[in-house]
Amino acid sequence: MININLIGAGNLAHHLFRGIYNSEGVKLQQWYSRDKKRLSAFSSKTGIIHDLKALQQADLTILAVSDDAIGELSSALPFDDQLVVHTSGSVSIHELDKKHRRGVFYPLQTFSKDVDVDFSHVPFCLEILEKEDLILLKKVCEAIGSPYYKINTEQRQTLHLAAVFVNNFTNQLYRIGHEITDIKNINFDILKPLILETAKKVQEVSPYMAQTGPAKRYDKKTIKRHLKLLDNPLHKELYELLTQSIQQTHGRKKL
Amino acid sequence: MININLIGAGNLAHHLFRGIYNSEGVKLQQWYSRDKKRLSAFSSKTGIIHDLKALQQADLTILAVSDDAIGELSSALPFDDQLVVHTSGSVSIHELDKKHRRGVFYPLQTFSKDVDVDFSHVPFCLEILEKEDLILLKKVCEAIGSPYYKINTEQRQTLHLAAVFVNNFTNQLYRIGHEITDIKNINFDILKPLILETAKKVQEVSPYMAQTGPAKRYDKKTIKRHLKLLDNPLHKELYELLTQSIQQTHGRKKL
Repeated sequence: MININLIGAGNLAHHLFRGIYNSEGVKLQQWYSRDKKRLSAFSSKTGIIHDLKALQQADLTILAVSDDAIGELSSALPFDDQLVVHTSGSVSIHELDKKHRRGVFYPLQTFSKDVDVDFSHVPFCLEILEKEDLILLKKVCEAIGSPYYKINTEQRQTLHLAAVFVNNFTNQLYRIGHEITDIKNINFDILKPLILETAKKVQEVSPYMAQTGPAKRYDKKTIKRHLKLLDNPLHKELYELLTQSIQQTHGRKKL
Repeated sequence: MININLIGAGNLAHHLFRGIYNSEGVKLQQWYSRDKKRLSAFSSKTGIIHDLKALQQADLTILAVSDDAIGELSSALPFDDQLVVHTSGSVSIHELDKKHRRGVFYPLQTFSKDVDVDFSHVPFCLEILEKEDLILLKKVCEAIGSPYYKINTEQRQTLHLAAVFVNNFTNQLYRIGHEITDIKNINFDILKPLILETAKKVQEVSPYMAQTGPAKRYDKKTIKRHLKLLDNPLHKELYELLTQSIQQTHGRKKL
């Protein structure tokens, strides 16, 4: 049985709680939140604490807290030489207090507040300083049913950047789709199957192979008409830049 | 029974063939392709023709051809006063020869060559000039199991533009994610669950509500670090512009 401490009461911490609580081979020993009210509903399921001094040693202590809080909280843990990991995509492993055995346990996924997470769709990016700590982190992933990948700091920070493109920026393109259809009284539902299919396609084929459309075809007539339809200057600029990017990727072969 | 003629031998035509062939209440009467070899495999299933003059009247004739070919092909059909529709997102209904009853039958979806389409995920945008033709197009959608929406020309052209954003441009963001991870020897598979989840999320909540990340948080430190990680000037420009667009959408409330 792997004993785990959980620090933090945000979105990710709640999902990790459920993942651990519902899995065999891992046990949530204690769950810390500064706020005294937030975790009271869980007191029958694990040891809820609001004072870090009450935290006991565990096989693994997970800091599921904001980037800025990682360093300070790791120093405040009342033990040393234990495995302590943070869950951030961008913070260095060295921000963890060096009195601990340190690691990163970064879930590359987006979490919704009220939607249960299927952990088989949450890949964990693992980073450690000591080889033997990897074994334990892998066991935790296996227990909760998640895929895992050992990566280094540079790779993790690149993944975090790539995640901004495929998640935040993609979502903003959905938003623009919503905006421009809304103005014309068009039901956004019409676009939803296309959004889903576009994401499904690249599960099987590369984004390079999946590309279609006026930019790739160098269809100047359609591109011009589309630009004319766009009112928001920022949307126009984005249309032009993304068209340029597609054409950079799919450059015409010289004849 | 609704008799249908299909014109064209491309990707969409093949999917429409399967959709019609596998449904009750609709029957593929004849299928035309200029190229004599392309449809030979289907000759036991429908009347394959390579000469437009051999085309007979039908309840519906679907032109699933490239935008540029619509006008000329509609004129070349050897009958008039029949319902003839094109399947383009951007071509005017009036490019169809006015000797016909004219309509648009635009499927808002991306089609892959070798992947069977589930027509329940293909919304059809219907446009007609005469009210009674709408009834027939709706019946065809119902027969093949597709949702449908009656829209006007301006709405269809806006949808086509929105589709470029949520499909082609989104796919290019996936491509950029692939590129920047590939350089660092990171398996693109790690990003696939996130891509799918991002698309799934907006099936339920609006893209506005679904947004997260450094741009929305005005997290200058992370944004600066990300920009530093990007080598390709076009990727940098896109990062900045999409960040700006997110911040335009999620403007900080004045204090």
